[in-house]
Amino acid sequence: MLAPTTLNLSGERFSVVYHIVGNYEEVMRKAEDICVEQTIEFPADLVPDDDIRSSIIGRIEEVDTCDNNTFRVRISYAVEIVQGELTQFLNVIFGNISLKPGIRVQDLHLPEALLRDYCGPRFGISGVRSLVGAFDRPLLCTAIKPMGLPVVELSRQVYEFALGGVDIIKDDHGLTNQSFSSYRERVSRCTASVQQANQQSGRVSIYAPNVTAPGEQLFERAYFAKQAGAGALLVSPGIVGFDRMQALADDDQIALPILYHPTFLGSFVTAPFNGISHRVLFGLIGRLAGADIVIFPNFGGRFSFSHEECLSIAQAAREPLGHVKPIFPAPAGGMKIERIAEMMETYGKDVILLIGGDLHRHPQGLQRASQLFRESVLQGGKVLWQSDYLAPTIRQ
Amino acid sequence: MLAPTTLNLSGERFSVVYHIVGNYEEVMRKAEDICVEQTIEFPADLVPDDDIRSSIIGRIEEVDTCDNNTFRVRISYAVEIVQGELTQFLNVIFGNISLKPGIRVQDLHLPEALLRDYCGPRFGISGVRSLVGAFDRPLLCTAIKPMGLPVVELSRQVYEFALGGVDIIKDDHGLTNQSFSSYRERVSRCTASVQQANQQSGRVSIYAPNVTAPGEQLFERAYFAKQAGAGALLVSPGIVGFDRMQALADDDQIALPILYHPTFLGSFVTAPFNGISHRVLFGLIGRLAGADIVIFPNFGGRFSFSHEECLSIAQAAREPLGHVKPIFPAPAGGMKIERIAEMMETYGKDVILLIGGDLHRHPQGLQRASQLFRESVLQGGKVLWQSDYLAPTIRQ
Repeated sequence: MLAPTTLNLSGERFSVVYHIVGNYEEVMRKAEDICVEQTIEFPADLVPDDDIRSSIIGRIEEVDTCDNNTFRVRISYAVEIVQGELTQFLNVIFGNISLKPGIRVQDLHLPEALLRDYCGPRFGISGVRSLVGAFDRPLLCTAIKPMGLPVVELSRQVYEFALGGVDIIKDDHGLTNQSFSSYRERVSRCTASVQQANQQSGRVSIYAPNVTAPGEQLFERAYFAKQAGAGALLVSPGIVGFDRMQALADDDQIALPILYHPTFLGSFVTAPFNGISHRVLFGLIGRLAGADIVIFPNFGGRFSFSHEECLSIAQAAREPLGHVKPIFPAPAGGMKIERIAEMMETYGKDVILLIGGDLHRHPQGLQRASQLFRESVLQGGKVLWQSDYLAPTIRQ
Repeated sequence: MLAPTTLNLSGERFSVVYHIVGNYEEVMRKAEDICVEQTIEFPADLVPDDDIRSSIIGRIEEVDTCDNNTFRVRISYAVEIVQGELTQFLNVIFGNISLKPGIRVQDLHLPEALLRDYCGPRFGISGVRSLVGAFDRPLLCTAIKPMGLPVVELSRQVYEFALGGVDIIKDDHGLTNQSFSSYRERVSRCTASVQQANQQSGRVSIYAPNVTAPGEQLFERAYFAKQAGAGALLVSPGIVGFDRMQALADDDQIALPILYHPTFLGSFVTAPFNGISHRVLFGLIGRLAGADIVIFPNFGGRFSFSHEECLSIAQAAREPLGHVKPIFPAPAGGMKIERIAEMMETYGKDVILLIGGDLHRHPQGLQRASQLFRESVLQGGKVLWQSDYLAPTIRQ
């Protein structure tokens, strides 16, 4: 027999909406299992009938039919079991049950009692807009690439993109600290390039190096980027952990906007009956973890997200969430210059349009391609050149 | 036009075996896409025919039929593109393509040119055996629980488990630093308990606190645990990142065995046609990232891993991998005392048997349950009590 406890809980609870596969009886059994598995992980019949049973174990709050074989079940948890730790929050919403099929985190209901433990994004949409001085249009973003190009070439790309009017120029997320592309040399040269272009253009473009790196090197790279004059940081929380993205965002010495790259996270969203919804993984968790910009593969590109899934990310990025600032959705992944109008119509003006490889197709080079990219956005997506038409002329 | 480069690559390549869904033509198209997406992420037709095209882009090495609609494709990558960084290694083997359905990382071929950048587990099977002084039998492991119990009760559990002969007593992975279970108080009391029990028993049991925590707190907790006399650390790399588990393992000031908990990682393995195989995720990546013990849900328990999947983890944990030490598989997740013989037969003696909640079912308490657990293992799995039979007598 276990002794009763006095836990002094506040009574404040957050909740998770799960989609659970099965008939009603199966789903209720699974829901009860979730309540236990995500908290006490202990035979429920051995728990004394005290605070643990009434407050620590998850509580089924609502059950609704989704379709014939899926139910929407809202389960609440005491705020105290996650105690302001993003790591434990992830562990409770989808830790061990990630190992069970037929359970998907669909939505989160987060009270201020939980949100107050999170700073969220430092800049958000309005902060990033202020940095680049663009207040009423979509922002433009691109990436330097391909991996293997000498640093001097990559920094030349930064210069041309910036001179052409791209607001945010990021490292390709595969650029790290390779022998053929040393991190420090790349960041030094690319920040110099963007500053030179800014002086010439009178505008403010920013360069965002990829700081995704093992252990302490993540922060070493972030501090180096800050000192070198980088304007933002690219990080892959699927690899280094969401808590590390949060730590970068919360660091007052760094104080730079954070671009959240989705690499390595696909398995959470590709299976329909397991995982975490696009809305939660990219939108809500991204904001809790301090991202100012969330990059995701747009529908109709190289990836398979649907129109609806992409909109759900954009909504979660921008909807009210207590004191947590709204952030920019940045649809990407094989976007072409001809799709600007469609993207602006889909996402509105609070969006960052990320076009990468396609800008390299213009026969007059990156600066010209960037000018046309910018001009097209300023003209509401008017098609000023067609990459597919031009491509054959520069194919080898 | 991009300028040609001289990359000075060694020619050493590692390779990834992917299972790709589709007919032959679709699979070859997907395979070529993987070669580009995971490296240059750039229109292949715009890359000059130089080192980048020949060496940086992934290379299809072998294609075999798996079944009617799946092919096994081995793709190699230059060792230099991951350059000794575990984060970039994960990014290359399954970064952006995680966002595409029908691609699964099935196996890895890792040459010494890659392995030499990884210390791997500090202890491995023989090192952990030396610590607890048990050389020719499965080790015994359990967890203190449930969340919500006062620290004094949890530390009493540690004492009883250790006195009864459990080798490794870990925190439940939901125990972090809650108001009702302060990390420092728990670790101080539990290490004192295990030391007291060891003095009485003359054996060596070890206590493994859960150090999974946000940002810098991960290392603060690990250092605190070390100073307090903890004998191992429990960490959840699915939440804090594999590179952080590696950093814990590589830290000479910590120098404690690492228990790899699988929480939050389920989505990588639950979908059959996307993700990472059990063998790679829990076995090979676990070893690269320094785990000495990999915990996973055993077949026939609360979770859904198959017998074959569990064996694939155990094999990957223990097979030769260059200088990287073999590690203990620790099947868990609702294991019962009656299944010891079956687990010993399945996994052999180089295994850690993790039985949690079931030990709480014995009417004479945890110490007695632990003694019988140990005695059963020493007698090859002889059933000395049956939890299912006893359970009703203590159900409320």
